[in-house]
Amino acid sequence: MLEVRAALVREWIEEATAYIHDQLDGEIEIQSKSNRKDLVTSVDKEVELLFRQKIAENFPDDRYIGEERMGDTPSNLAGGVWIVDPIDGTANFVLQQNHFAIMVAYYEDGLGKLGVVYDVMNDDYFEATAGQGIKRNGQVFQPPFKDKILKDSLIAVNGGMVMTDAYKVQELVKESMGLRIYGSAGIEIIALLKGEIAAYVSPRLQPWDIAAGQVLANEVGIQVSQFTGEPVDLLNQNRVLVAYPSAYRRMIENLKGPR
Amino acid sequence: MLEVRAALVREWIEEATAYIHDQLDGEIEIQSKSNRKDLVTSVDKEVELLFRQKIAENFPDDRYIGEERMGDTPSNLAGGVWIVDPIDGTANFVLQQNHFAIMVAYYEDGLGKLGVVYDVMNDDYFEATAGQGIKRNGQVFQPPFKDKILKDSLIAVNGGMVMTDAYKVQELVKESMGLRIYGSAGIEIIALLKGEIAAYVSPRLQPWDIAAGQVLANEVGIQVSQFTGEPVDLLNQNRVLVAYPSAYRRMIENLKGPR
Repeated sequence: MLEVRAALVREWIEEATAYIHDQLDGEIEIQSKSNRKDLVTSVDKEVELLFRQKIAENFPDDRYIGEERMGDTPSNLAGGVWIVDPIDGTANFVLQQNHFAIMVAYYEDGLGKLGVVYDVMNDDYFEATAGQGIKRNGQVFQPPFKDKILKDSLIAVNGGMVMTDAYKVQELVKESMGLRIYGSAGIEIIALLKGEIAAYVSPRLQPWDIAAGQVLANEVGIQVSQFTGEPVDLLNQNRVLVAYPSAYRRMIENLKGPR
Repeated sequence: MLEVRAALVREWIEEATAYIHDQLDGEIEIQSKSNRKDLVTSVDKEVELLFRQKIAENFPDDRYIGEERMGDTPSNLAGGVWIVDPIDGTANFVLQQNHFAIMVAYYEDGLGKLGVVYDVMNDDYFEATAGQGIKRNGQVFQPPFKDKILKDSLIAVNGGMVMTDAYKVQELVKESMGLRIYGSAGIEIIALLKGEIAAYVSPRLQPWDIAAGQVLANEVGIQVSQFTGEPVDLLNQNRVLVAYPSAYRRMIENLKGPR
């Protein structure tokens, strides 16, 4: 059953990718949402529509949570729920035409069953099915490390948090080997899976920013939680730490503390 | 004449790259230099040696400035001087096995004649010869933009400066569309050339961190200076701003001010 869904997602993403490459050759229509740095393009909307339609056609009983909030948003996670970010890292998409991701997750009764993060421009496809591990571009994939400690690792932290030293995050950066910021939750998750960074910290992840990454992380023992240590709430915005176990234990100490 | 040197540099970098890939398949010996985050590996040293030897064989009258400080370091820039960073972004090299660069520059009497920045793992080769523009992987290359303004662009700023708000750099980050940190001067220079970021700010660049990038920047109207506005001093460490003209004008206001 999951294999059927996984195969369909591969098809849909292939179709979306062809559309995205096509659009990148022309002019893309850009709008601001909540503030001037919160961008949306016609491409985000079209790709979201593509996923909505494909899911409705193939799985009419499933429900859908997507970034561009077209149609009803579920108020609970009962049954089959798809959570999709059509273009994660829209600023990168618009300003770099690189370093953005398509993220698709499928949950059943709140349990992650399928998670896909696809780095579109580098054609790098990470897919997890619950209990069956990760495939990268169709091949069985394991991160090069089972664990990473903060002191010996690079980490990614939201720039705003670094500037305000929220949750004493500067202490964590200084304890690490250095700070990296790539500007897309999906790209940071891929960096984590590849072992390039030990942790990713963001104070503002929407369900579609973390749903797919969480399924991937779960499959390889990378930990995901809110700063409080509680599980991520896929119906609301979250403050999220994603990290290898040792780095997680060290970093959650600060993140559990006062802002 | 420059064409001969450019062709030789391509050969040397090809040889260095084969060696690096070979070493990445095995165990790499890592040491700390000035502090625990300042790494050097046997690979940095071997690649530096390769360039020193090739240059000495082919251009015995030329002098050499290199990161690993093997042999005499020139005290002036008279005549032909090569400035080489065998592996720029050593933390990335060690911890990510990705996102590092080989950088080679050739100056005559202090004037940049040849600059090469090579993203090793992505096989992306940027080469400038003075007055003749840039080639990327052998093809004529122009950045997609002639200019970029801060407000509409992503920028790269050294993490330490962001944390301490040195030179009111947080104001610049907030005015921009966002902060990116890739962890290698060479990789940041490539991001600039590709138009992915509008500026790169670092308080601590050695001659070999900026010599090649400066030749590339000069060829396409990207500006390079110390925070004071003075030209970079290729015999000493510098605080450096590299930026498209409009972003440069805005950002140098803060960087010229008090720390």
